[in-house]
Amino acid sequence: MQLGMVGLGKMGGNMAARLREKGHEVIGFDVASPERDVDDLKTLVARLDAPRVVWVMVPSGEPTESTITALGDLLEAGDLVIEGGNTHYVDDLPRAERLAAKGVRYLDAGVSGGVWGRQNGYGIMVGGEAADVEAARPVFDSLTPDEGGGFVHAGRVGAGHFVKMVHNGIEYGMMQAFGEGFELMAASGIVDDVPGTFESWREGTVVRSWLLDLLSRALEDDPDLSGLRGYAQDSGEGRWTVQAAVDLAVPAPAITASLFARFASRQDDSPAMKVVAALRNQFGGHAVTKADGTVAARD
Amino acid sequence: MQLGMVGLGKMGGNMAARLREKGHEVIGFDVASPERDVDDLKTLVARLDAPRVVWVMVPSGEPTESTITALGDLLEAGDLVIEGGNTHYVDDLPRAERLAAKGVRYLDAGVSGGVWGRQNGYGIMVGGEAADVEAARPVFDSLTPDEGGGFVHAGRVGAGHFVKMVHNGIEYGMMQAFGEGFELMAASGIVDDVPGTFESWREGTVVRSWLLDLLSRALEDDPDLSGLRGYAQDSGEGRWTVQAAVDLAVPAPAITASLFARFASRQDDSPAMKVVAALRNQFGGHAVTKADGTVAARD
Amino acid sequence: MQLGMVGLGKMGGNMAARLREKGHEVIGFDVASPERDVDDLKTLVARLDAPRVVWVMVPSGEPTESTITALGDLLEAGDLVIEGGNTHYVDDLPRAERLAAKGVRYLDAGVSGGVWGRQNGYGIMVGGEAADVEAARPVFDSLTPDEGGGFVHAGRVGAGHFVKMVHNGIEYGMMQAFGEGFELMAASGIVDDVPGTFESWREGTVVRSWLLDLLSRALEDDPDLSGLRGYAQDSGEGRWTVQAAVDLAVPAPAITASLFARFASRQDDSPAMKVVAALRNQFGGHAVTKADGTVAARD
Amino acid sequence: MQLGMVGLGKMGGNMAARLREKGHEVIGFDVASPERDVDDLKTLVARLDAPRVVWVMVPSGEPTESTITALGDLLEAGDLVIEGGNTHYVDDLPRAERLAAKGVRYLDAGVSGGVWGRQNGYGIMVGGEAADVEAARPVFDSLTPDEGGGFVHAGRVGAGHFVKMVHNGIEYGMMQAFGEGFELMAASGIVDDVPGTFESWREGTVVRSWLLDLLSRALEDDPDLSGLRGYAQDSGEGRWTVQAAVDLAVPAPAITASLFARFASRQDDSPAMKVVAALRNQFGGHAVTKADGTVAARD
Repeated sequence: MQLGMVGLGKMGGNMAARLREKGHEVIGFDVASPERDVDDLKTLVARLDAPRVVWVMVPSGEPTESTITALGDLLEAGDLVIEGGNTHYVDDLPRAERLAAKGVRYLDAGVSGGVWGRQNGYGIMVGGEAADVEAARPVFDSLTPDEGGGFVHAGRVGAGHFVKMVHNGIEYGMMQAFGEGFELMAASGIVDDVPGTFESWREGTVVRSWLLDLLSRALEDDPDLSGLRGYAQDSGEGRWTVQAAVDLAVPAPAITASLFARFASRQDDSPAMKVVAALRNQFGGHAVTKADGTVAARD
Repeated sequence: MQLGMVGLGKMGGNMAARLREKGHEVIGFDVASPERDVDDLKTLVARLDAPRVVWVMVPSGEPTESTITALGDLLEAGDLVIEGGNTHYVDDLPRAERLAAKGVRYLDAGVSGGVWGRQNGYGIMVGGEAADVEAARPVFDSLTPDEGGGFVHAGRVGAGHFVKMVHNGIEYGMMQAFGEGFELMAASGIVDDVPGTFESWREGTVVRSWLLDLLSRALEDDPDLSGLRGYAQDSGEGRWTVQAAVDLAVPAPAITASLFARFASRQDDSPAMKVVAALRNQFGGHAVTKADGTVAARD
Repeated sequence: MQLGMVGLGKMGGNMAARLREKGHEVIGFDVASPERDVDDLKTLVARLDAPRVVWVMVPSGEPTESTITALGDLLEAGDLVIEGGNTHYVDDLPRAERLAAKGVRYLDAGVSGGVWGRQNGYGIMVGGEAADVEAARPVFDSLTPDEGGGFVHAGRVGAGHFVKMVHNGIEYGMMQAFGEGFELMAASGIVDDVPGTFESWREGTVVRSWLLDLLSRALEDDPDLSGLRGYAQDSGEGRWTVQAAVDLAVPAPAITASLFARFASRQDDSPAMKVVAALRNQFGGHAVTKADGTVAARD
Repeated sequence: MQLGMVGLGKMGGNMAARLREKGHEVIGFDVASPERDVDDLKTLVARLDAPRVVWVMVPSGEPTESTITALGDLLEAGDLVIEGGNTHYVDDLPRAERLAAKGVRYLDAGVSGGVWGRQNGYGIMVGGEAADVEAARPVFDSLTPDEGGGFVHAGRVGAGHFVKMVHNGIEYGMMQAFGEGFELMAASGIVDDVPGTFESWREGTVVRSWLLDLLSRALEDDPDLSGLRGYAQDSGEGRWTVQAAVDLAVPAPAITASLFARFASRQDDSPAMKVVAALRNQFGGHAVTKADGTVAARD
């Protein structure tokens, strides 16, 4: 089928390529990419046959918001916008309602797969009306893995980004669990082959998983990860997961611990622990470590 | 090769069967099993050719301890005991040292795979001397999956049970992460197809894993798990993982959160939360819920 | 000095009474209270001398928002609104900016003290301009404890509610710590006098605190708290604290654990733990507890 | 009354001084202290009238164990040992049983108060038989604060050290809560007077406590704690609290979070976070920070 693709970066570009390989007509636009087929949104819309389908795959936040606002002005009743970026799910419904005022339809699509997606297919999680999902079905079928699976119409508007967010939250928890296990083995004093242990788990164990495969691969190159700093960014979706847990009164201690561990990994020093050190010094005369690294007892 | 197997329960029995299918001569003993080949340990030892290899697969704690003590009396210098049960790793070294006083060798083997192991092969993680690992290599090769993998000589005595313990700790964290994700989706009010979402993740996503496969299968039968209580036992290895983290000064917040969530799941009521309720009532006049279910404000 | 008080409930009514006892002229309005001095906001504003000072002490959310919007229409340049309710700090700055467009000034005041405040004085934490703080200084002085202390000009607009929120977050952590300690002693099997232990800590220990005094008092009436359910509400400020931690990338594991423990205390059953139980059953054949309470192994 | 005091360090020396001020006859021994009254344990025992009371206040672990073993050899039936150090509660009962074989009685006493105890009195928590508690009552009365309180006979042998351990666990949680609150305010960008905020809380708020007083004092000297590293030791009792929680199946997330935060504060780098960074790099091509501080994307 025919599709407009706005955003031709790492994700959008690969997705456009995969869709073309599968026989779709993709008209791409990205102001920053020489790969673009048209030079502005207006031309993109003009080039598409109604009812149009436009996939938006630009950075989340303002770029997505302004792109969709502009599309809202250009598109006509019956056209369909698919937002495939990392939108916070709470923004989907107001956006859909703004478009609906003009008769423009809206699907939110969470996309998983990263740099492996073009080759292996993407995981696609969609929120919105069933009729709109059906309208874009050929695109979803081509983006997801050839062997089937990888697609869900998760629920109403927002559900696609919500479950993608939860997917990433679960991912945080799984990664943290592997990290804690690694650290325990490294600290044990009796485990001599940590990479071999992870490698061995890839068959016949309960924890076998793609993340384990990747960890095993990373340890092949750097068996004790001494080449890396323990410094981990967070992508926003981990934060939204914890905020959703708070909003929904759902206890999510493991995912939250994973997020907080990333926060802590980026701190040079912990203000909270300064308080603990100061208090121990006050009540117990316990030594403190000064900012210059010297150790001083309470006078 | 020839092997004595002490313990013919769910694990030992299946392992003996798998080994026999692969051509090994297994002489089994289990006082409680009609499948036993001999009626006591003494006869078992007499039936084996020196240097003997005896795999112990009985319940952890006292049964394992007394079995190995008895074997220590019966075996001779050069014989090898492989402890495949759920021994706490801190007990391995003292036990090995007691056997070593008589010249009896000791390997500790963590075994993963549960009820699926007989068919798919087991994960085996071994601690001990390299020469002893080589002596039992044919047995390990036959227990692990046919397609290779699933085996590691993890380190010195205790390392096998240590890494098996860590494996289970990681497993706790992964299961908790999936649980939190499920609960978030169920509470969202916008996700209409939770089972389909998990199913879709089985291809093309970062969280794909055997546990995800199993969860998807469980949700096929009971899409909202309404047939189950949220009541989870813990096997001991999760507790040991947290205790090892404390002993080794390793922060393990996600795994610990997973263990505590299981503890809480088995409580009818939380004493800690009674304190919180009582305090809120004291300082704020906030209502409390009485033991009989009525709600009462502070008078 | 002269002050308008909007909201004469448990908090506003007590505060008005304390201020009158200290010689201030308080003109109170609350549509739902027979204690009101005027029947509507318009009359309240008419009764006050310019530049007016109006303290708003109504339920947070819509009631506060609509009250301040109405006041914004009635007040004149130079008048001052003090918002003393439980406003989410992120709402203070936009609100102040809306009022500032008309020249109306705004202070946000976090108030602590609960039902004990009228007698003992309140803790007051204020955000806003120094000149505005000075304008209302006599009121703050009379609301805070007679023996001094209890007041801070914490920072710019929003800071008052922010630090009040953090105060409550700390309170969550302290209460949870006492709760966990209580539960540990109750579970120990060797501690026979839990109330006496808390009572003894009131002197000469590191944990002495007002919350400990209150806990000791609660245990006088009900030594094992058997009369209460372990069921704890949360007031909103605990949630905001965790959300601020997430927004600010501050690890706050203890406060968050306290919030999640309250969430869990209000669940009849844990969906997350259903997943854990289902997974254990799938991979290990571990028994599950059915919704009807019966225990069933995997078939 | 007459008392032998073994151990004249910071704690034992101050306690001996306080007891003498209150009129007790204290015979002190400490091989490392010039303040000692006798030169060996044998002479100490000879100097005391039967039935003797000996308070042991030496470093925990081996020093305590060997001191009590030696006392067990020297003392007679009817004599009483009071162990006031930081013994792990699980060691009390076996120790008491060894002494009981000779008719020597045993009390375990948890002591709180630190460097402030000599002046303000100590908190004393005792485990053991009621008759033995009565025998030493005058000593307990003199050690605890003059204004009363500060003493509890918490339960049977081990209970004194158990509740002292729990006291310290609660202390960990409270300190962590204050630390998290400090960090939130420091990170907020709108709170300009953090020390003043803590100071203001000392009156009229729910969190007022001795720890708050100490924190306020610490912030007087160093308003943003810039002179300190966020580096916090743990004393052993926090670890035991978490291990007790695990042993007793008590969820203790806030106290555990506090312990883990201290562990993390002492790490130069987090091995667990290296795993997270490595995995993010593997699946998403996310940049990693190399050990030399440079940032590199996945190639």
